[in-house]
Amino acid sequence: MAEIGIVGLGRMGANIARRLMRAGHRCVVWDQDATAIAAVVADGALPAADLAAMVDTLAAPRAIWVMLPHGEPTEGAIAALGDLLSPGDAAIDGGNTQWKDDVRRAATLRAKGVDYLDIGTSGGVWGLERGYCLMIGGDAAPVARLAPIFDALAPGRGDIPATPRREGRAPNVEQGWLHCGGHGAGHLVKMVHNGVEYGMMQALAEGLDLLRAADSRALPADHRITVDLADVTEVWRRGSVVTSWLLDLTAAALAEDPALAKYAGTVGDSGEGRWTVQQAVETAVPTPVLTAALYARFASRDETRFAGKALSAMRAGFGGHIEPK
Amino acid sequence: MAEIGIVGLGRMGANIARRLMRAGHRCVVWDQDATAIAAVVADGALPAADLAAMVDTLAAPRAIWVMLPHGEPTEGAIAALGDLLSPGDAAIDGGNTQWKDDVRRAATLRAKGVDYLDIGTSGGVWGLERGYCLMIGGDAAPVARLAPIFDALAPGRGDIPATPRREGRAPNVEQGWLHCGGHGAGHLVKMVHNGVEYGMMQALAEGLDLLRAADSRALPADHRITVDLADVTEVWRRGSVVTSWLLDLTAAALAEDPALAKYAGTVGDSGEGRWTVQQAVETAVPTPVLTAALYARFASRDETRFAGKALSAMRAGFGGHIEPK
Amino acid sequence: MAEIGIVGLGRMGANIARRLMRAGHRCVVWDQDATAIAAVVADGALPAADLAAMVDTLAAPRAIWVMLPHGEPTEGAIAALGDLLSPGDAAIDGGNTQWKDDVRRAATLRAKGVDYLDIGTSGGVWGLERGYCLMIGGDAAPVARLAPIFDALAPGRGDIPATPRREGRAPNVEQGWLHCGGHGAGHLVKMVHNGVEYGMMQALAEGLDLLRAADSRALPADHRITVDLADVTEVWRRGSVVTSWLLDLTAAALAEDPALAKYAGTVGDSGEGRWTVQQAVETAVPTPVLTAALYARFASRDETRFAGKALSAMRAGFGGHIEPK
Amino acid sequence: MAEIGIVGLGRMGANIARRLMRAGHRCVVWDQDATAIAAVVADGALPAADLAAMVDTLAAPRAIWVMLPHGEPTEGAIAALGDLLSPGDAAIDGGNTQWKDDVRRAATLRAKGVDYLDIGTSGGVWGLERGYCLMIGGDAAPVARLAPIFDALAPGRGDIPATPRREGRAPNVEQGWLHCGGHGAGHLVKMVHNGVEYGMMQALAEGLDLLRAADSRALPADHRITVDLADVTEVWRRGSVVTSWLLDLTAAALAEDPALAKYAGTVGDSGEGRWTVQQAVETAVPTPVLTAALYARFASRDETRFAGKALSAMRAGFGGHIEPK
Repeated sequence: MAEIGIVGLGRMGANIARRLMRAGHRCVVWDQDATAIAAVVADGALPAADLAAMVDTLAAPRAIWVMLPHGEPTEGAIAALGDLLSPGDAAIDGGNTQWKDDVRRAATLRAKGVDYLDIGTSGGVWGLERGYCLMIGGDAAPVARLAPIFDALAPGRGDIPATPRREGRAPNVEQGWLHCGGHGAGHLVKMVHNGVEYGMMQALAEGLDLLRAADSRALPADHRITVDLADVTEVWRRGSVVTSWLLDLTAAALAEDPALAKYAGTVGDSGEGRWTVQQAVETAVPTPVLTAALYARFASRDETRFAGKALSAMRAGFGGHIEPK
Repeated sequence: MAEIGIVGLGRMGANIARRLMRAGHRCVVWDQDATAIAAVVADGALPAADLAAMVDTLAAPRAIWVMLPHGEPTEGAIAALGDLLSPGDAAIDGGNTQWKDDVRRAATLRAKGVDYLDIGTSGGVWGLERGYCLMIGGDAAPVARLAPIFDALAPGRGDIPATPRREGRAPNVEQGWLHCGGHGAGHLVKMVHNGVEYGMMQALAEGLDLLRAADSRALPADHRITVDLADVTEVWRRGSVVTSWLLDLTAAALAEDPALAKYAGTVGDSGEGRWTVQQAVETAVPTPVLTAALYARFASRDETRFAGKALSAMRAGFGGHIEPK
Repeated sequence: MAEIGIVGLGRMGANIARRLMRAGHRCVVWDQDATAIAAVVADGALPAADLAAMVDTLAAPRAIWVMLPHGEPTEGAIAALGDLLSPGDAAIDGGNTQWKDDVRRAATLRAKGVDYLDIGTSGGVWGLERGYCLMIGGDAAPVARLAPIFDALAPGRGDIPATPRREGRAPNVEQGWLHCGGHGAGHLVKMVHNGVEYGMMQALAEGLDLLRAADSRALPADHRITVDLADVTEVWRRGSVVTSWLLDLTAAALAEDPALAKYAGTVGDSGEGRWTVQQAVETAVPTPVLTAALYARFASRDETRFAGKALSAMRAGFGGHIEPK
Repeated sequence: MAEIGIVGLGRMGANIARRLMRAGHRCVVWDQDATAIAAVVADGALPAADLAAMVDTLAAPRAIWVMLPHGEPTEGAIAALGDLLSPGDAAIDGGNTQWKDDVRRAATLRAKGVDYLDIGTSGGVWGLERGYCLMIGGDAAPVARLAPIFDALAPGRGDIPATPRREGRAPNVEQGWLHCGGHGAGHLVKMVHNGVEYGMMQALAEGLDLLRAADSRALPADHRITVDLADVTEVWRRGSVVTSWLLDLTAAALAEDPALAKYAGTVGDSGEGRWTVQQAVETAVPTPVLTAALYARFASRDETRFAGKALSAMRAGFGGHIEPK
């Protein structure tokens, strides 16, 4: 059995610790919130007073998994570990970091002999039971050393049908973890994964919006059709081309409330959708769908409506159209 | 001097009558609103009690210009004229009609020996002074016969620099009127004109929105820049690549109020932007910009926000993200 | 056991017959291609010499499922059945018809006392084994009468986890068939399904394109990352947010050939993606992702590149940029 | 009369020197290409052997305008000038620099007491005769000092109608130059200008593409319309809403060759369209049109067609659609 330190015990970090402990691994944990530590300690983890104590507690070669919000919190923790860890140890960023930051950090840590892994971790609130899909970037040696950890976190084969013609390929991929490539590759693949996620979500949302509006009074009476979205999404789960986990979740939400009345309709975005578009721009790859999905979220939060005002001003200018408040 | 009947004396129809009369042409006019008739009669037009009276008043071969809202009003007037007019007369739809309707109507009228012209008319509230850009579809004979009318309505060469290498081409094009082709061609060209207009407007509006947001608090302090949009649009009018009439109008609106506070930000759309997209779909021509411009208007009026709610429901489902009201 | 006539024995029609016969139903079949008939007769179907013979063979109340290309072939078959069928019989269009055509046809057939059902049928080449997802529009009585047919065609519950809180809803939805609403509702739901399918496919395709280009020489050397797309798609099948049948298919294609070298990159589109956009335009629902997905297919087939030429001409005009052949 | 150094004598730099000399200003010039120097010297400029010699030749307080390709060439020149210039001098970047680089450079130069101006310069090959639209960022003092230079370069009022209600605003804006704000503001405004330019160009290009395809054989025979694009763009120049300089240029290109046959249809992009999208992403401003315009250029150059191949592979997977080479 392996041991690992876990820094950051939010929903993701705490459940990662729990899934590892269920598999028999030992977890030394820390969070800035003592309550968060206590909850995971209650499930069997060993608490650390701070990062230094965590490093002292773990036996070399150490592995410490940082699961913090991207940006300053993660940056600070990795920097601190760079000072505390010894050659042969490994620092892991399991959060949602811009992959270029990984490239930079890995070079810094390598100078100290410390390994660095960037791991894109998908699974959300379901990961504890369902397992986490792990996309790993970094050198081969620490990946090989930590394979038991990845085996425990990943979903495993389950009853998902095997893809034909994968003979000769690394079997761990079918377990749900992949060494994607060198430093940054893990977060790059996770970034694009989230970009695709945005696009798929928006595709579904637009389709539902179309069906909702199909009984619009703007249509001729004999062209108005009312459909039950909870039933539509449910039937699509059965043998249709759009079957997907996102559809499962949507069907469940609509079964609970077909009007989705508890949501305001304004949608946040994390960094990865944005970085995906920036990557597209840098590499000159047209990604109209991934970008439209991001912009739909931006537009959902646009309180200013300045672009619309500018359009109205032009319309008033040339056509006398009046679109006042 | 020519004479013409004008049906529909809204902003466009009334000013078309006035511009024709200024050029010495005789206008017989009708509108369902007696006040509208009186106003144009005060400027020299001859009133008609109804369409039949208008037809009686005009000498053959007659020309009657219908300038009504598209759809039922125009459809009804053209049908009525079909019954009233004689072989050799011409019915003109100067409004914003779907060009396929022109094709259908022209066939019906042709069976009665009546000519039909579809004329896309651009110029808005400025047309009386600035002239109207006329895009004409139909047979050559009635177009030739009505050239004096078109000469009077079009802006004329003015001080717009001539385009090189147009030797041998019809000089009326540089006056501002074009026989675009057969039935429907006039409204097709006008439809696409309006599609392009939507795209250009949205390009400008997005640029201004970007500049407005350039001092966003989400940016690092030394990357926040505040610009004066009235001045920016004014300077762009002078030697930049984006100089355009739409920019002129925008600069004027911003000079009056840089916040455009009197507009709500919800933007209407007439039929032509929609027909443009439908044409694109039917002919498999990718028009991402023209379509995005139309959808931005749709989105500006979206009260339901159902697509956003669906996204929030999915995010809650997989990630526990909470985006309630 | 029920009996049904099937008109059109292409890949879809033939397999629908086979799946029904496996469930013990009796199929009377016709196709313009005698070989196609023979193949299904070999599996147990009863051949008909023509539509009239099929009608004669079936006992009233009859049901005849038309599975032909949309447009003229389907239109002709439904019209012919309208003449042949008797009050109480049902004509079914299981193909990909524009739902407005269903509204029209249903009114015509109703005048003769003949029922009409429009059924969106998803399942493709996998339907024989996996079952077909059925989206049905029409009156309740023929739907109820044909429930055994739909039960046999639909996938059934299988091992797909039940959606919570569906108590009290029609259980057949979880079997994979849904009475969506009145005439046209089935094909409307299928149309939007296909629109969503286009969007999801494009989201995946763009993500893969981004990963492919991540080792672009345009990037700084330390920012080039090479990933194995076959492995990436495989790992995403395991616990990630984008797990979906489309991802399964993509992973299989990439396992066979990561370069997808046998495809040219030009992509066709059937009517439903287009109708989806037209529905969006008619109901003023912004669908940027569904539309971008359609336009990407249009662009993939654009041999003319005229829009690009126009851009180059403008660039040459203002900047002297030279982009010749 | 003022004097100025000009570094970089490409099309833009050389013409800027010429326009300044025509107004009576003295220009000391340098370029890495001696031929380029000789051409401008023939028009009256004073050559410099290198940057150091240029600095020696100019009297304090000096102003040196760098007009080089963005990235390394400009970066190097500004850095060199930082070493050579004295407190009170000004370094000007008149090229197309990312505005964040201006913020950084200005801070570096300020530490040495050297002023820095970032000037977005629009006008292209027509600037010599038409004048340059100048968008200036930096401190007020050097802007005031260099006003005579800007007056000479800008187009001046010409016969462009004045915008109402600009009383009390800086008159130089109507001359065609604007002090947009602090460091970076000039290039920010120019960046967005170019973003808008991309959008307007694409709007026009799509409209023309639609008209070109309006006689598509995919349409019913009576719905095919052939129009002359040279005439259409010419008539739009006269009183229509889309009148613009880009339209003028397009009409000229089409008058020369309606098929635009000398262009391949693949379109380049400079940095500013990309930076515009990145700015949009950073400030969460939805810019679907500006982004679609950029992506259309990317797509025009996509040799790989990998996204299309991925779509074809999925279609083959679920539907047996065959789209081979």
